[in-house]
Amino acid sequence: MIVLFTDFGLAGPYTGQVKAVLHRTAPGVPVIDLFADLPPGKPRPAAYLLAAYGVWFPPGTVVLAVVDPGVGGTRAPLMVEADGRWYVGPDNGLFELVMRRADRARSWEIAWRPETMSASFHGRDLFAPVAGRLACGDMPAGLARSSEGGRYPDWPDDLAEIAYIDRYGNAMTGLRAALLPHSARLAVAGRMLARARTFSDAAEGEAFWYENSNGLAEIAVNAGRADIVLGLTVGTPVSVLKAAG
Amino acid sequence: MIVLFTDFGLAGPYTGQVKAVLHRTAPGVPVIDLFADLPPGKPRPAAYLLAAYGVWFPPGTVVLAVVDPGVGGTRAPLMVEADGRWYVGPDNGLFELVMRRADRARSWEIAWRPETMSASFHGRDLFAPVAGRLACGDMPAGLARSSEGGRYPDWPDDLAEIAYIDRYGNAMTGLRAALLPHSARLAVAGRMLARARTFSDAAEGEAFWYENSNGLAEIAVNAGRADIVLGLTVGTPVSVLKAAG
Amino acid sequence: MIVLFTDFGLAGPYTGQVKAVLHRTAPGVPVIDLFADLPPGKPRPAAYLLAAYGVWFPPGTVVLAVVDPGVGGTRAPLMVEADGRWYVGPDNGLFELVMRRADRARSWEIAWRPETMSASFHGRDLFAPVAGRLACGDMPAGLARSSEGGRYPDWPDDLAEIAYIDRYGNAMTGLRAALLPHSARLAVAGRMLARARTFSDAAEGEAFWYENSNGLAEIAVNAGRADIVLGLTVGTPVSVLKAAG
Repeated sequence: MIVLFTDFGLAGPYTGQVKAVLHRTAPGVPVIDLFADLPPGKPRPAAYLLAAYGVWFPPGTVVLAVVDPGVGGTRAPLMVEADGRWYVGPDNGLFELVMRRADRARSWEIAWRPETMSASFHGRDLFAPVAGRLACGDMPAGLARSSEGGRYPDWPDDLAEIAYIDRYGNAMTGLRAALLPHSARLAVAGRMLARARTFSDAAEGEAFWYENSNGLAEIAVNAGRADIVLGLTVGTPVSVLKAAG
Repeated sequence: MIVLFTDFGLAGPYTGQVKAVLHRTAPGVPVIDLFADLPPGKPRPAAYLLAAYGVWFPPGTVVLAVVDPGVGGTRAPLMVEADGRWYVGPDNGLFELVMRRADRARSWEIAWRPETMSASFHGRDLFAPVAGRLACGDMPAGLARSSEGGRYPDWPDDLAEIAYIDRYGNAMTGLRAALLPHSARLAVAGRMLARARTFSDAAEGEAFWYENSNGLAEIAVNAGRADIVLGLTVGTPVSVLKAAG
Repeated sequence: MIVLFTDFGLAGPYTGQVKAVLHRTAPGVPVIDLFADLPPGKPRPAAYLLAAYGVWFPPGTVVLAVVDPGVGGTRAPLMVEADGRWYVGPDNGLFELVMRRADRARSWEIAWRPETMSASFHGRDLFAPVAGRLACGDMPAGLARSSEGGRYPDWPDDLAEIAYIDRYGNAMTGLRAALLPHSARLAVAGRMLARARTFSDAAEGEAFWYENSNGLAEIAVNAGRADIVLGLTVGTPVSVLKAAG
């Protein structure tokens, strides 16, 4: 299975062309759109989402991950293998948390190049053919990197910010809920939010946080849009308040 | 064929995870996105759309229908068989009109549970595996319900409201056009609209109603957006004015 | 391969129904969403996008192209064969540039009709079955047209307007970059823009134009949205300023 994790959008021309390349490179391999609406050009929040959502897929999955504001510049193209899953995309921090949390991770700078490559769409011209070949068990030429190479040591283990706002207005943070005390409250946009198990445990119109279905702390309002009610946007800082012992 | 009828959106993480589950449960069965942008959290208008659009698909189709504001609460999960089509989703009225209009309908409360189930994403964890199994001809464990059980008798046979606004700004009602007199006018947002056969029969900029391609009365403006021109939104009431005889 | 090029949107009911028909007519043939968010009801800019993006696909591809404000009226339904690719859709100029630029093009008015056809959704009822049959090598009945018939001679060879705005706010023109002098500047919305190779060659916040990955001149802002920064919309005129020799 090939999983797409991008900021390309589905309706415009980018995801379609990527899928056409995948279909020709890896015929018959199913392609799943995981995220196509990542915050455009922001690899840092995307890295925390990738670490939370990528591991939901079974080993053997190839994740084509492209949030690439530096396309055409000097950032390297990468292949990463982490706990049996493959990740393909730009070296801009997108794979930092996947690698940091994996039991075992290796990475290669992609040395293979297509015959023709546009300056602005490496997702189609470089990363998709590589992902397709990996899905077929055929690893393109690459230069192994030391396990410490290219990492972003200053990025935190969990991101205390809003990383994504979904169609319902729910705001995902980059915090793993399992690492927070059960009674922790989240402070965001001047409000203090208690934990709930799920939507139906909160009163209508009430804001709360909960562990979402992929393990992230997420801020929501029962029967409302948290982004509008609380004034949240990608990048809004969140802080964790641990209850007095 | 498995048909998705949800308020999940396509670009975010929800539809993709559902499709990954369907692919593993029912490999090779085509999955069609019918609606992914149903009005979020509103099963009532969705029920009228489902009754109009579900029957367009051939018998044997499995419809995974999830508009589920009560996820994690006490509403039951359902399997419905109506005139040879299967429907899987929450018991919140979503299947009321499908069942009411069917020649023959049966329903079961789903008794099967997955090993692990999130509190907030039953679409992925419960409904998708059930839909996948049904598409393979394997019915999960369920408790048959009496034909009257769990119905919503106070919901009207047709919904005299705007139920959905499409990408062009056309506004679908929950009214079956075939049940309206040919000369009926629709009153909506202070305007009185006559029937047209299709867009090209109306003058440019003119508002009208017509029978859409799935049999619903739909309000449109030729070369314009009816939602903006008339000020329509999901829930705006509509009334039918029958011409004097 | 069948490629969809429409203004239908992906999330609403239109693309899904078209795909269901394609699946039944041409089982196993992959269907790619190229554009689903073309400017609604505007075949003219779409014609320049189709000419730029259609040729990226290999010969043998069938493109189902529907931007059809005149549905239900008198415009004819067309099949076009141009340099080995097939195009199916309404005769409203959408195929004008594909045919004009092709080495060899033929067109037929589709004579075949389905048993039942809605007045408003020929994409599903007429064009999709025809595209599916063509993808299977089975040409429906049609009336050959003279090579000059039905053309739009007053449409320019390149469109000096914004034809599409993508998810990043980049604004594609209908101008082929390869036909512009390398030092050409584009004047748009009161601004004069120089050419850059790609995003990373421009300073942050700087507006520029570049040859996009399908050969069109595209206006962008590094790390910003050109549509908002420059005030661009579909239809905004662009003019080419050739540097003094």
